[in-house]
Amino acid sequence: MIETPSLVDQYCHGVLRTELGLGTFEAQLARTEGPPAPGTTLFDTQTGFAVRRWCPPLLGLEPHCPPALYLARRRELGVLEAGRRLLRGSGITTYLVDTGLPGDLTGPADMARDGDAEAREVVGLELLAEQVADTSGTVECFLANLAESVHGAAADAVAFASVAGVGHGLALASEPPGPGEVRGAAGRWLAGRRVGGPLTDPVLLRHLLWIAVASGLPLQLHAGLGGPGSRIDHTYPALLTDFARATAGLGTDLVLLHGYPYHRHAAHLAGVFPHVYADSGAALVRTGARAATVLAEILELAPFGKILFSTGAHGLPELHVVGACLFREALDRVLGTWVADGAWSPEDAQRVARMVAADNARRVYGLG
Amino acid sequence: MIETPSLVDQYCHGVLRTELGLGTFEAQLARTEGPPAPGTTLFDTQTGFAVRRWCPPLLGLEPHCPPALYLARRRELGVLEAGRRLLRGSGITTYLVDTGLPGDLTGPADMARDGDAEAREVVGLELLAEQVADTSGTVECFLANLAESVHGAAADAVAFASVAGVGHGLALASEPPGPGEVRGAAGRWLAGRRVGGPLTDPVLLRHLLWIAVASGLPLQLHAGLGGPGSRIDHTYPALLTDFARATAGLGTDLVLLHGYPYHRHAAHLAGVFPHVYADSGAALVRTGARAATVLAEILELAPFGKILFSTGAHGLPELHVVGACLFREALDRVLGTWVADGAWSPEDAQRVARMVAADNARRVYGLG
Amino acid sequence: MIETPSLVDQYCHGVLRTELGLGTFEAQLARTEGPPAPGTTLFDTQTGFAVRRWCPPLLGLEPHCPPALYLARRRELGVLEAGRRLLRGSGITTYLVDTGLPGDLTGPADMARDGDAEAREVVGLELLAEQVADTSGTVECFLANLAESVHGAAADAVAFASVAGVGHGLALASEPPGPGEVRGAAGRWLAGRRVGGPLTDPVLLRHLLWIAVASGLPLQLHAGLGGPGSRIDHTYPALLTDFARATAGLGTDLVLLHGYPYHRHAAHLAGVFPHVYADSGAALVRTGARAATVLAEILELAPFGKILFSTGAHGLPELHVVGACLFREALDRVLGTWVADGAWSPEDAQRVARMVAADNARRVYGLG
Repeated sequence: MIETPSLVDQYCHGVLRTELGLGTFEAQLARTEGPPAPGTTLFDTQTGFAVRRWCPPLLGLEPHCPPALYLARRRELGVLEAGRRLLRGSGITTYLVDTGLPGDLTGPADMARDGDAEAREVVGLELLAEQVADTSGTVECFLANLAESVHGAAADAVAFASVAGVGHGLALASEPPGPGEVRGAAGRWLAGRRVGGPLTDPVLLRHLLWIAVASGLPLQLHAGLGGPGSRIDHTYPALLTDFARATAGLGTDLVLLHGYPYHRHAAHLAGVFPHVYADSGAALVRTGARAATVLAEILELAPFGKILFSTGAHGLPELHVVGACLFREALDRVLGTWVADGAWSPEDAQRVARMVAADNARRVYGLG
Repeated sequence: MIETPSLVDQYCHGVLRTELGLGTFEAQLARTEGPPAPGTTLFDTQTGFAVRRWCPPLLGLEPHCPPALYLARRRELGVLEAGRRLLRGSGITTYLVDTGLPGDLTGPADMARDGDAEAREVVGLELLAEQVADTSGTVECFLANLAESVHGAAADAVAFASVAGVGHGLALASEPPGPGEVRGAAGRWLAGRRVGGPLTDPVLLRHLLWIAVASGLPLQLHAGLGGPGSRIDHTYPALLTDFARATAGLGTDLVLLHGYPYHRHAAHLAGVFPHVYADSGAALVRTGARAATVLAEILELAPFGKILFSTGAHGLPELHVVGACLFREALDRVLGTWVADGAWSPEDAQRVARMVAADNARRVYGLG
Repeated sequence: MIETPSLVDQYCHGVLRTELGLGTFEAQLARTEGPPAPGTTLFDTQTGFAVRRWCPPLLGLEPHCPPALYLARRRELGVLEAGRRLLRGSGITTYLVDTGLPGDLTGPADMARDGDAEAREVVGLELLAEQVADTSGTVECFLANLAESVHGAAADAVAFASVAGVGHGLALASEPPGPGEVRGAAGRWLAGRRVGGPLTDPVLLRHLLWIAVASGLPLQLHAGLGGPGSRIDHTYPALLTDFARATAGLGTDLVLLHGYPYHRHAAHLAGVFPHVYADSGAALVRTGARAATVLAEILELAPFGKILFSTGAHGLPELHVVGACLFREALDRVLGTWVADGAWSPEDAQRVARMVAADNARRVYGLG
């Protein structure tokens, strides 16, 4: 039996503060472009089945109970109390919370209190830049404020995260853009932008990534499965190779989030570049009963000191629970099988489990 | 034990009407560019081994008997009687038969009679366009007849299928081509074409796909493993993303056939877009003893209401048998394991099995 | 129990002749761009764990003993004696040794003597061309010597190998470059080159590949995982499709090395083209405890007569041991499971095992 007394969720979001009905809950189970097809439901997915397996017992119900029964019980307890029971039942001891997505989600302090755990902030670069743009009158002012904001955020946060970078190949060129190029792009963006408008300009994204690299904080980059509007072949981790090569030796670590269905490729990069790390968790929430296989695929090429657990959970504390439970069960099954086969020693298996569950993240993010 | 009393083969072809020798039978086991390498045989493939496992008992022989013995027995029974025994032994209750490939193959009515099953027609778009071209004297006549033929076919068929579309990236642009562009392409194609010449012009293929979308019938698109002359990275399902986004909400479903080795990517698209479905069967015939794993990989990201069984069989009734047997066994093994592990409830497993085996296809294709 | 009395390692390198310390040994366990990240070690990889599992018993130690203890024992025996014990313990009966990489490695004769086995040479095309360039004064002289050297090497070697070809898409165009193009490229390369300078010009690489094709010897092409400085998506086997189609029927076989993480795609090409073969070994050394799954994935699409075993080992005899042990164990597990499930007959399983382990390689390389 592999044990992981500590569990550092190196990438997640907060949870929704409002009561949810069956439909609003279901909408959080997957990232789709449109409502479920007629005659189908997002509860009939690996994520939906995993939620129904792991979460009802934490609220006093039988595993696999019907969604409507579960939602009724959740509302009966109230969003706050249900959230507390779920987060505390997850076994996660530290949350690194990306605050860079829109929506009324709990922050790191809430997650720490509700989950009876440690919590630290991961700053989303795109939202930071958009907020700076909202309050900067001129290009010069924007660029100065941007540099200062990233620098300031680095004092408290444990990492920066970028969602958009990987989807824009040009943003990952192997050199920062020149000052004139940046000023031109900033001018065009600010001129055409309304308050709250998203940052998608590849030159500015590239500028932003290189400012973040200069901060020395680990930089988390989304790869593989993206949100609505993205195209999966544009988030192929191999597209990061040149950026990884260009940032080698600068003292800043790159963490590839998600990866799936390119997790073997992400693991490969973690094997080639000393400063590149691979995420082993977020994909498990999406693949449910297949989590052990997906985890095993990540464990093929990535050195064991370069793999980090996360849930990637967003909106529902159920997803933190599922991410943690699937990870622990998958780790136990995969490493346990290798020990039973004689391929690994029991001591090595236990040591690797603790590295992936917590110790690697503690070292990379400088946690206590 | 998972049960699937109904089995809708949502994509297959008819079978050859002539007696086959060892060599002509072997040539149907794989899609190659050239004869087997010296010293090798296509019987030594997953498909060949699967045929030798499942089919001999249906003709009164031992499993895994030598190919020559099997072929002798097959000829002894005669192609018609052997085909009847095989198709009736497959457990398939409905065949959706693509009549759009060349060759003297049985049609839907034959399949229904020989297999003691229901059968409906899937109309291949490329062959339809080629037949229209064979009988149209002018560009205007061709384009008018083409629209009318597609419209007419939609009255009886349950779906349209396109083989060539995915191999020609331009054919999948996110807008239909303009009328002038279509006329120009049609003129060039008709002028350079002899009777029977294949349609490969990307503008005309694009035009054809959009006419089919307008019909409202489900549109089956080949992705992944293609036939001779294709290049596998040109059939990457991610290349369909823009076309899927452009056709969302128009009321026409897209069904991605095959998928393998990109079946995880096809499943992803089925998860993102409400009108996109993933095929779970044709890849199994090619991967034989590995069918359970391939099926499990499709079950990672695709919502369970978006997965459809097929055999993709062509030419040999043995391939319908193998497709059905591998699917049922793989489904039983994969879902049965998840139930045994506590990951899924027995009721959910049984429900999902029936959805994938038949119910999803009944809903998508409007079967009785 | 599947038995493989003969084992032909169809692609490996020699071993280092010098005593190794912990750090120099560790550096051979993976191909990285830079030293291990602080707090990590390359012993904590699948390859490192596999070495610790299989090799200590061959030197009289317990499996999974600490690296420092193993290295101390290795130095105690001496590099020559340790190498002998390891190679002779691998079970490999024939080594095909690529002599085309730099470094002071043992050659085929050493491998035969130390390993008590047969050994034949595989000639690396790039190194051959570089050596010819070192000693050729003019473009005409270089090109004439190059053709003669390839022709001469073909008399003794069993195969040619190209590392760089796949990384340079243009090198794999479907026609040889014209004489003027070759002369121009050779002139530019020789003019800008110092002695020992590597060949990376795509026109010359293409020229070289086509000279090799004309020799009739099997041509081994690296695909998938490459060395430092490469980019994995540039070694995608599908990029070889046009070259494979262009060389079909010329009488020269192409062997795709490595493949992983694109081994399913490499297996697909081996299924489509009669003269294309897939390597089933080198990926196992990198994936260790996952070897059975990776091997099974290769066995999906590749005809069983088209799969060849190798270790891809380089520098450490431990890697030859690990490659051979992982392969035999994986083969036994994968085929044994299929036999137990009734999917394959025991006779077929044994026959396929011997084909992949040795017989296919004997046929392709014309070994006695």
